[in-house]
Amino acid sequence: MGAGAVGTSVAELASTYGHTVTGIGDSSSAAVDPGGIDVEAVLERKRTDNTVGQLAPADLLDGAYDALIEATPTTLGDAEPGYSHVTSALERDRHVVLANKGPVAERYDDVRRVERESEGTMLFDATVGGAIPVVSTIDAFDSDSVSAVRGVLNGTANFILSRMATDSLDYEHVLAEAQDLGVAEADPTFDVDGTDAALKCVIIANVLYGGGYTIEDATVEGIQNVPASALSLAAEDGRTIRLIGDVADERILVGPRLVPESGTLAVSGTQNIVQIETQHAGRLNVSGRGAGGHETATAVLRDIGLLE
Amino acid sequence: MGAGAVGTSVAELASTYGHTVTGIGDSSSAAVDPGGIDVEAVLERKRTDNTVGQLAPADLLDGAYDALIEATPTTLGDAEPGYSHVTSALERDRHVVLANKGPVAERYDDVRRVERESEGTMLFDATVGGAIPVVSTIDAFDSDSVSAVRGVLNGTANFILSRMATDSLDYEHVLAEAQDLGVAEADPTFDVDGTDAALKCVIIANVLYGGGYTIEDATVEGIQNVPASALSLAAEDGRTIRLIGDVADERILVGPRLVPESGTLAVSGTQNIVQIETQHAGRLNVSGRGAGGHETATAVLRDIGLLE
Repeated sequence: MGAGAVGTSVAELASTYGHTVTGIGDSSSAAVDPGGIDVEAVLERKRTDNTVGQLAPADLLDGAYDALIEATPTTLGDAEPGYSHVTSALERDRHVVLANKGPVAERYDDVRRVERESEGTMLFDATVGGAIPVVSTIDAFDSDSVSAVRGVLNGTANFILSRMATDSLDYEHVLAEAQDLGVAEADPTFDVDGTDAALKCVIIANVLYGGGYTIEDATVEGIQNVPASALSLAAEDGRTIRLIGDVADERILVGPRLVPESGTLAVSGTQNIVQIETQHAGRLNVSGRGAGGHETATAVLRDIGLLE
Repeated sequence: MGAGAVGTSVAELASTYGHTVTGIGDSSSAAVDPGGIDVEAVLERKRTDNTVGQLAPADLLDGAYDALIEATPTTLGDAEPGYSHVTSALERDRHVVLANKGPVAERYDDVRRVERESEGTMLFDATVGGAIPVVSTIDAFDSDSVSAVRGVLNGTANFILSRMATDSLDYEHVLAEAQDLGVAEADPTFDVDGTDAALKCVIIANVLYGGGYTIEDATVEGIQNVPASALSLAAEDGRTIRLIGDVADERILVGPRLVPESGTLAVSGTQNIVQIETQHAGRLNVSGRGAGGHETATAVLRDIGLLE
């Protein structure tokens, strides 16, 4: 469900991972075939006609499948329509793999409650860090033995800050350039005001502390007011500024922070990095491409592999 | 099986991960209790008497357990006695979690053959990269979509090279210091001649290409002949030298390589780093503590968690 960059990438790559796509839906249409749909034809139709088929989205949810991939856009508050998609699948005892952050950031306790009554399992590694295995790595440790998780969780904000630093450019200038390059969306609000990074931290907190968190529990500051001069001053001191999300001691902080210029957290461009502090294994660093259709799709496909 | 740093750490941490230790064995003795042994008493006995109990190692293998932890020292060639421990458990339809590299580096095809006939599963994330999830991360991708794996896989060699570089010291001087600090063992041969890193690369190659590799298939050069002057020359050019293991195009290369001084591969001290090149998700970097009893034990315990 969802025919944006992630949903279509999952459909494109599914067969190389040994899976059959029995349906694709977007906000207004669906294509369903229990024997497997013609992915190329459906994606071509999406490009030319902006629909994926002649059926309604509800037909997809009622159709034949083992796992529902929820890849509609992230929404705040009630997390709809993603929330209803997830619970519909779980109530039918189907598995769910999420790329949409909303249900596990804003309504984690609700979806977990529905999952407990279901024979289906819910996985959501794709919601944090794109291609980087963040949730699954935290999950693999006993959560009691993870003391903190922090990192760079938004590629757009990181691209803007690294570009401002290396070329002494203003925020507005670099943002416009990022939009031209397709790195920043037309409406980059959630990327630059910290909301996107905060939602990812909320998901991490829910995993670490067994639920109870929404974005209301996060203290969030964006990068819109970081002046070029602050980056120059930081550089004189061998440091730079990154938008860091930090989950520790049962609280969530997101904001621009000073970090060592050649340190592990100072990834450049659209890279993401996550540091996991563990009690028995020290600090683990995981970095890579934190966004992108194909990148996020591989995380979805890794999760599907775990369900078999 | 194995009461060295890793085996005893697994025993110490097992209960915090919700597991019961029903036996511990070393090369000459064993303690077994289906209801759970007194770990502290056994480890105290190991420290004072250098035995773990009054039984024979064979009694451990014949005892009651769900998963055998193979943590005896890595041996080359026939990989004994680890190989016999692993097959004994699989033949009894038990799971096996390895920290010992031998069986999966030197006799991968043999142990996989025995595993196929068994209801038990064999996992070995602890054999590569200590606390860093390397094998499991590669495994989570479709192996066809991983094009290369490279990295710093031996903490002792990395400690020596980073120390030689930062303080312009000779190999012999730093090696002696590393031995004093307990970073290098009394006999550091396998760490400095590249054998240890090569065995880890062999395991990676076996996972990536479905078996067929032993250390005979690796081209290996150690760090014993890297002069301090080579590191100074590299530094003048913004580079440094690291012992890099590289698995790509179905071949294994291990040796000292020039890498950018502030680049991702130039981790310092005893850190390890692994870069996984994927077809759809770009490059993934994973770094952390590559050795140590507790660190490696957490990898064993993560694997045990997957078996439940």
